[in-house]
Amino acid sequence: MNILFIGDIFGNPGRNAIRYFLKDLKKEYSVDVTIANAENSAGGKGITRVIANELFAEGIDFLTMGNHVWDQRSITSFIDEEPRLIRPANYPIGAPGKGYGFIRVEGQKVGVLNLSGRVYLPPLDDPFSMSIRWINELAKETSIIIVDIHAEATSEKIALGWFLDGKVTAVLGTHTHVQTADARILNNGTAYITDVGMTGPRDSVLGVKKELIINRFLTQMPVKFEAASGPIQINAVVINVDDRTGKALHITPIQKTADVKE
Amino acid sequence: MNILFIGDIFGNPGRNAIRYFLKDLKKEYSVDVTIANAENSAGGKGITRVIANELFAEGIDFLTMGNHVWDQRSITSFIDEEPRLIRPANYPIGAPGKGYGFIRVEGQKVGVLNLSGRVYLPPLDDPFSMSIRWINELAKETSIIIVDIHAEATSEKIALGWFLDGKVTAVLGTHTHVQTADARILNNGTAYITDVGMTGPRDSVLGVKKELIINRFLTQMPVKFEAASGPIQINAVVINVDDRTGKALHITPIQKTADVKE
Amino acid sequence: MNILFIGDIFGNPGRNAIRYFLKDLKKEYSVDVTIANAENSAGGKGITRVIANELFAEGIDFLTMGNHVWDQRSITSFIDEEPRLIRPANYPIGAPGKGYGFIRVEGQKVGVLNLSGRVYLPPLDDPFSMSIRWINELAKETSIIIVDIHAEATSEKIALGWFLDGKVTAVLGTHTHVQTADARILNNGTAYITDVGMTGPRDSVLGVKKELIINRFLTQMPVKFEAASGPIQINAVVINVDDRTGKALHITPIQKTADVKE
Amino acid sequence: MNILFIGDIFGNPGRNAIRYFLKDLKKEYSVDVTIANAENSAGGKGITRVIANELFAEGIDFLTMGNHVWDQRSITSFIDEEPRLIRPANYPIGAPGKGYGFIRVEGQKVGVLNLSGRVYLPPLDDPFSMSIRWINELAKETSIIIVDIHAEATSEKIALGWFLDGKVTAVLGTHTHVQTADARILNNGTAYITDVGMTGPRDSVLGVKKELIINRFLTQMPVKFEAASGPIQINAVVINVDDRTGKALHITPIQKTADVKE
Ligand SMILES: [Fe+2]
Ligand SMILES: [Fe+2]
Ligand SMILES: [Fe+2]
Ligand SMILES: [Fe+2]
Ligand SMILES: [Fe+2]
Ligand SMILES: [Fe+2]
Ligand SMILES: [Fe+2]
Ligand SMILES: [Fe+2]
Repeated sequence: MNILFIGDIFGNPGRNAIRYFLKDLKKEYSVDVTIANAENSAGGKGITRVIANELFAEGIDFLTMGNHVWDQRSITSFIDEEPRLIRPANYPIGAPGKGYGFIRVEGQKVGVLNLSGRVYLPPLDDPFSMSIRWINELAKETSIIIVDIHAEATSEKIALGWFLDGKVTAVLGTHTHVQTADARILNNGTAYITDVGMTGPRDSVLGVKKELIINRFLTQMPVKFEAASGPIQINAVVINVDDRTGKALHITPIQKTADVKE
Repeated sequence: MNILFIGDIFGNPGRNAIRYFLKDLKKEYSVDVTIANAENSAGGKGITRVIANELFAEGIDFLTMGNHVWDQRSITSFIDEEPRLIRPANYPIGAPGKGYGFIRVEGQKVGVLNLSGRVYLPPLDDPFSMSIRWINELAKETSIIIVDIHAEATSEKIALGWFLDGKVTAVLGTHTHVQTADARILNNGTAYITDVGMTGPRDSVLGVKKELIINRFLTQMPVKFEAASGPIQINAVVINVDDRTGKALHITPIQKTADVKE
Repeated sequence: MNILFIGDIFGNPGRNAIRYFLKDLKKEYSVDVTIANAENSAGGKGITRVIANELFAEGIDFLTMGNHVWDQRSITSFIDEEPRLIRPANYPIGAPGKGYGFIRVEGQKVGVLNLSGRVYLPPLDDPFSMSIRWINELAKETSIIIVDIHAEATSEKIALGWFLDGKVTAVLGTHTHVQTADARILNNGTAYITDVGMTGPRDSVLGVKKELIINRFLTQMPVKFEAASGPIQINAVVINVDDRTGKALHITPIQKTADVKE
Repeated sequence: MNILFIGDIFGNPGRNAIRYFLKDLKKEYSVDVTIANAENSAGGKGITRVIANELFAEGIDFLTMGNHVWDQRSITSFIDEEPRLIRPANYPIGAPGKGYGFIRVEGQKVGVLNLSGRVYLPPLDDPFSMSIRWINELAKETSIIIVDIHAEATSEKIALGWFLDGKVTAVLGTHTHVQTADARILNNGTAYITDVGMTGPRDSVLGVKKELIINRFLTQMPVKFEAASGPIQINAVVINVDDRTGKALHITPIQKTADVKE
């Protein structure tokens, strides 16, 4: 089975990139299941019901989130009814939504677990010790398990990769919006990459108009974010999975760019 | 001119990697000048005079540092006499050492500027506004200027890349110990990569034995760091420069791994 | 001369406290000059022109700010024309407003310098080394100089107190919204307190309705802030100054509470 | 019953202050039980078995800790055998030691719970939700429960105070080394203070020689800590408890200073 995982979709340009690249990508890589991190899909900040439905309609099967999950307050009104949308599992009990879920495809199930790191990020529950509990739940129903570790520090993501090596199909980092060049299969069969990258405007600072962020660094004053224009990109990985064992056979990083006139 | 820049050299395994890979790499890429970030070259923490001399003897022309610069207290006894070793320029006035310098090669000069980011790092002087001042100093003597931006946050490095685009030959990120897959020439001729990566033990967490770091995340107790063993890697980039203009023509990311028995 | 310095005025309840307590307080302590930190005066977030004028009309002579200075974007439209309102001086050059100013009273001048700490706060310019420069400017015109150090970490505020001991009349901390019990005259004649405290609703978390903040800690989800109701308090200090030398003779901490029906 | 709680004991000067002040203080306030935060008792960094025994011999019944708990590695060799020494309860399962305990006194039991905040501190388990579990354990055996919340941010401590108001006898903050002026009985009978303060050298920065810390702020270089000399102080509170209900009747802040020649 081939699983496509798409890095943080950023605003309008990110959704344009999905429309522009996804269909061909799925053919090119014989993709069976598509997962995407959508924490920035609504103007860079969170997600709305309309945008979630748009992304499903474009052919994404399942959405994960990150620290921006609550940016659009309306998410609390639909996240509990949408089984294809999860948020980091290590939010405290009592937070709306779920942290893991399943995708059904061709008589098989793919489990997805969303975690948030805690280094330079809010103090959620421990993603290391707790992940074992949730992976055990997922493992009752399938051996194909994809983990989105949404985190800032490379140390935390890499340590989690080694910690889960052999226990899940893939540990895929998100959040920094820059694809890393370390995709590999770890020693016990888990696919790993520190960050899948960002799907949105290429000539930007993490998706935002670069002049705004430069100004923020120069003045230390807050700026109103605005998605950048110009060329769009998709960042993703394809995991080729041994369906019987759930082990990853290959991980292929993907970057495509296009200069699309709207 | 071809300039080789090597990512954070980590401990013994990192210095082994220099011995193992550097000579061939220089031939393969017709390297004229070699720069390396050496902030972790002494057991992961700082640098000593002996290790600096060892790295020069191995064929590295110039060393930059980062937040680990003061880990070996002895550095304050030699940094002011060693023109080939710089530390982030945005340390306050009064800190020992210098933040920029020159390499002389074949009748030309290469300027090197070392900066530290401030996001999730100590509050040094502003690397954005101050960089202009230092670049002006360097530009008086050469148009070939390499900037090592040692920083955690991708936003800060990318913003600095855009900010200096057209003003310097290259803006090269260090510190996260993971090479990013975004090497490119920016719109005005500056070579850019968010992180060059790490030179040291591959199966590790940023160079450290992975079991130690996993344990630290699980217990939140301090651990005594120890360099990992196993396969070694070198992470680097080669910048191909137009000597007359100082513009970058190409940036080539390099990753080599070897399983060396000692 | 007696100088009254009032801790962070928080929203409506804080302005009520000014109306309720200020006039009597000025009599009780024979106050000549009144300064207040107003960074939370507009609903907890920043300040508006209308609120600034209201506070001046109530008898406050001069306003300082802190990390919330830009919360109300409209401040950039009037801060440059209002000499009685300053913001931390260590914002980068290019930020609107000024970081120090003077109050004229009975043929004398009182200099006021506003600084922001950098520990757990944005990376502004160095408040230590830069303060000397600004104090020199102020000292050209007066020996009575009040410093508002708006900072989180006790270490940073205390170190600044010792650093400026003998160079200014008073180093007064703000930002944590809790008055500390360490008011004293330091060895060289500078009045010092780690935090003056908060002027606003007493039964709150830093001014905000306590249930909201408890909920934020329990869920790690964002909450919309709302000022608490119930009893109001004023937190302040009075500095008794030797007019000729600018030395502080006494520092008197003040806390008053009232249960006012609106 | 009168319970004396002593703020962070810092190094030699702090232990001198215990020797100098404790006996008289116990008489003056008719103290029945003495608890102290000892995270800095060994040269500012952690605690040793010898120092713990010294403090017990001086008349302290029970010791709590904080973020410095593991600074002396030897603590792991005795913390599990010493029932009078606890560390923050919200360290992950697997960390040595316990987070709560009991003091037996005159046929009664006093329960003590040690918690660490997470704002600007390591990401331990949630002190809010978890505290309820531990308080329930303690409440099985006694209604007199003292909570040491070792935390940086005033918001976190105040919110915990309100959260536990009516559930425990006292919520006492430690860690900032500065006593706050907000000691009070909350609405439902819980004694509260944001920070009890520090027991050690008065003319210092949190216990450390002030010149060293000023230098660290000026250079952003690491310094080797050294306890300050000069006058010593004890910071503490006395809680007067209704033995039958466990409610606090009074909280009295204490600060004593002495210029002792050694
Ligand atoms: Fe994102
Ligand atoms: Fe994120
Ligand atoms: Fe490094
Ligand atoms: Fe570093
Ligand atoms: Fe404030
Ligand atoms: Fe503030
Ligand atoms: Fe402490
Ligand atoms: Fe502490």
